[in-house]
Amino acid sequence: MPKLYVAKGACSLGAHVVLKELGIAHEIVKVPLRQPDSPIFKVNPLGRVPTLVTDDGEVITENAAILPYLADLKPEAGLFAPAGSVERARIQEWIGLVNSDLHPAFRAVNRPNLFHPDEAQFPAVRAQGLTRLRDLLSAIQRKLEGKTWAIGERFTVADAYLGVFIGWLPRAGIDAAKDYPGLAAYGDRYHARSAVKAALTVESTD
Amino acid sequence: MPKLYVAKGACSLGAHVVLKELGIAHEIVKVPLRQPDSPIFKVNPLGRVPTLVTDDGEVITENAAILPYLADLKPEAGLFAPAGSVERARIQEWIGLVNSDLHPAFRAVNRPNLFHPDEAQFPAVRAQGLTRLRDLLSAIQRKLEGKTWAIGERFTVADAYLGVFIGWLPRAGIDAAKDYPGLAAYGDRYHARSAVKAALTVESTD
Repeated sequence: MPKLYVAKGACSLGAHVVLKELGIAHEIVKVPLRQPDSPIFKVNPLGRVPTLVTDDGEVITENAAILPYLADLKPEAGLFAPAGSVERARIQEWIGLVNSDLHPAFRAVNRPNLFHPDEAQFPAVRAQGLTRLRDLLSAIQRKLEGKTWAIGERFTVADAYLGVFIGWLPRAGIDAAKDYPGLAAYGDRYHARSAVKAALTVESTD
Repeated sequence: MPKLYVAKGACSLGAHVVLKELGIAHEIVKVPLRQPDSPIFKVNPLGRVPTLVTDDGEVITENAAILPYLADLKPEAGLFAPAGSVERARIQEWIGLVNSDLHPAFRAVNRPNLFHPDEAQFPAVRAQGLTRLRDLLSAIQRKLEGKTWAIGERFTVADAYLGVFIGWLPRAGIDAAKDYPGLAAYGDRYHARSAVKAALTVESTD
């Protein structure tokens, strides 16, 4: 069965949720991040999660690859759409926005050391990062307006991925219920799904 | 015919190259970025390129969506691979890495103001960004070792996208020929393709 490497609190939750939503038998391997002796380096030289190892021993990395790959294993589950369709492009568009903007926007807030060598400057880097993150959250809230999920009424791999970062807002010191009610409601719908609950339970257990 | 909005020197070159590689009839609309009155805001509220408008008037944004969508219009061109295949996942993996890491890594180098409000700190932000960018370039060079293109002998949408950023190295003050000969050779192969030459010619003409 496919093996998915995840880390607690990491973006690998997105791929994990997809496995649970699809109901595909799988094994979850929890690894620490940014530790040179982490077992993740044996399967992925970049040391990152999610990393998927297929039944044939193929190693697939990056949410942008794993989410579509898993969804295409079971198209009848309706988490994605046929290749060449505009609907599939809409789902990829969300994955792209999360991948290129939303996830990176947390970096300056959570890891200012990546952007400045001097600890005294970390508060300024964090504040600047927070401004960018908030602009992006406003744009995302507007894009979700009137919709249950990213592309409409149907939960797709885009939501499995986007929901992870809506769940990160408290960690960035953002009170979604107060500042982004649309995102807070979306996050509540996400966390109410049995697949999300199941994935989070596995990841939070030692 | 589909209409692609691009900006000179932007990552939209990737989607433009794919259109030229596929030989699909198309219209290119050149727009300025980060100017409130740019016509791009009329089609994409985020004001970003690439933005594709299909024959049916559907607006598709994000390279992560446009590259797969275009390639799936003409699968026989071999720029992508069938949905559900490991090869497609490999191509998506590259798109993900470029989208989530390589492109964002240029931001701190080229636009330090996004990460710190004080101009006096820009050199430190740039230097830190450059260190991260260089680490990533080393990893990418290792991933390309022994290969002509990202996944092997065949040019795919992953290359149309990756090549754009290899072309950005001089802009970040990086001498690829000296520091990353593998990437420099890859960049030479990229820029030797007639589709890349054709796209760059269109984008550089006023």
